[in-house]
Amino acid sequence: MITVDDVRAAARRIEGRVVRTPLVPAPVRDPRRPWWIKPENLQPTGAFKLRGATNALATVDGRPGVVTHSSGNHARALAFASNLAGMKATIVMPSNSDPAKIAAVRALGAAVELVPPDQREQAATALAAERGLVLIPPYDDHAVIAGQGTIGLEICADLPDVDAVLVPIGGGGLISGIAVAIKALRPNAKVIGVEPELAGDAAESLRRGERTAWDLRRARRTMADGLRAMVLGELTWPHIHRYVDAIITVTEDEITEAIRAMATQFRQVAEPSGAVSAAGYLFHGDELPAGRTVTVLSGGNIAPETLAGILSSRPGG
Amino acid sequence: MITVDDVRAAARRIEGRVVRTPLVPAPVRDPRRPWWIKPENLQPTGAFKLRGATNALATVDGRPGVVTHSSGNHARALAFASNLAGMKATIVMPSNSDPAKIAAVRALGAAVELVPPDQREQAATALAAERGLVLIPPYDDHAVIAGQGTIGLEICADLPDVDAVLVPIGGGGLISGIAVAIKALRPNAKVIGVEPELAGDAAESLRRGERTAWDLRRARRTMADGLRAMVLGELTWPHIHRYVDAIITVTEDEITEAIRAMATQFRQVAEPSGAVSAAGYLFHGDELPAGRTVTVLSGGNIAPETLAGILSSRPGG
Repeated sequence: MITVDDVRAAARRIEGRVVRTPLVPAPVRDPRRPWWIKPENLQPTGAFKLRGATNALATVDGRPGVVTHSSGNHARALAFASNLAGMKATIVMPSNSDPAKIAAVRALGAAVELVPPDQREQAATALAAERGLVLIPPYDDHAVIAGQGTIGLEICADLPDVDAVLVPIGGGGLISGIAVAIKALRPNAKVIGVEPELAGDAAESLRRGERTAWDLRRARRTMADGLRAMVLGELTWPHIHRYVDAIITVTEDEITEAIRAMATQFRQVAEPSGAVSAAGYLFHGDELPAGRTVTVLSGGNIAPETLAGILSSRPGG
Repeated sequence: MITVDDVRAAARRIEGRVVRTPLVPAPVRDPRRPWWIKPENLQPTGAFKLRGATNALATVDGRPGVVTHSSGNHARALAFASNLAGMKATIVMPSNSDPAKIAAVRALGAAVELVPPDQREQAATALAAERGLVLIPPYDDHAVIAGQGTIGLEICADLPDVDAVLVPIGGGGLISGIAVAIKALRPNAKVIGVEPELAGDAAESLRRGERTAWDLRRARRTMADGLRAMVLGELTWPHIHRYVDAIITVTEDEITEAIRAMATQFRQVAEPSGAVSAAGYLFHGDELPAGRTVTVLSGGNIAPETLAGILSSRPGG
């Protein structure tokens, strides 16, 4: 497992290459739980993934380039970080990816390899072996986990008496890194994962005390496309098992309402996966501890028409 | 006129009471003009006005309270800052104000006095005299100008080799403070105001070298409701005349496109008055110097239905 020293080393490596996001007071809802938001949608690629990708890339040395498999925020992050570092990146994407996402990755100078959706992981591994590239996985990697953990250091620096941190959970890279940092610096603070009910494998895993896989067909039904991982990572799971206090689940309607609240009351564009933590705060207070609460707004890459639809529909309707 | 030392004193007073916003790299459009955005929509009240109100309030001493006239972001800022400081605030608002804005100010604990729209300034002055309150005007006040100028200090700290700063201009408080700071710390950088064509009194004033008033009926037609001032302030004008290099104007369509770009490519909700600076960058490159350019996104308080309409309309349509 990684330690807070790994996270500190990551913070030194990524300084000046990612945005040092502020901690912003949110409109207080529940006087027992003053609320702050960590807006990672401010990263140039629109999501926290830039931290882990930048840290992992900084440890690569003397190799012809890097490769990964992702159709989402990690793809964009690795393309951006590689471009900045002057390194060649190859991104394996499923052939049914959104053309806009493929174009965005290519615009950042990365090479894109399209493969059938169920072959992307093995295709990336094969490319790494054939071409001598370094594989940088989206979450199940110690350098990636340490990079995401820098969010936890910044939360403790800005709010030393934080009581609870709510973090979206998919493959588990973000919450693993944050939990390591928070538990080292503020052991009494609770670290709580939030995931969609429809992709509730992490909540079930923590309840049962063992990694538990869910059927992808079920997870695919959530609008939170960044949180559809079927199972926690082999490397993230031990961190989650040891450091995460609880995992709660939110409904699709709650995610929609949280996206609306982020835009209308907080002036931030949130993607569904980024808004689950606010949904947890807004609708699941009875499952949360009292005290100063931070929700990590992990990203803001949402289709404009989806956001327009949410803003023009009636609240609660 | 104020000096950079006044701005530095303001920075010390407001530290910890307003959000220290980051400077965020924007998607590069024009390689000759790398672009950064200063997102003041992150302030808890959604706009930069919290800086000036907080600074002005910190200099008030031994008086029963403060009063101002505003129906917009300054009203909300002074109500918020007074609430935080445990001071009583009275806000004179025009009787035709949006009920949601009146409710927002009352929710922050301020007293609201509704008066006919053309009497708000004299009503605030009268209340100040009758009740011994300190009048804190929305922009024509040295403490307010110094507070807004802290944005300029932060820009120079984060991007010491900045070449140009684009700032929305209405009454002129924001650009006056920023220009004082920038010209002291980075004299070669250009400070450029941006205002709607329909409220182009500041551009005309700078061109003619004297404060020039516009007809309010014309200014009222711009969607940028925070920039409808008919004339620059008596106190802001000397700062603008001395320190501002140019003022450019943007069309209503350009403002709309800039709001769309801020939401879809930058994941930030901008109000029309806050997006004029980005509109200047995006559509008026031929009027701008080359080099590292910062646009101040001054606020994000836009009606959800207006944003939804912009996001669901066709770009350029």
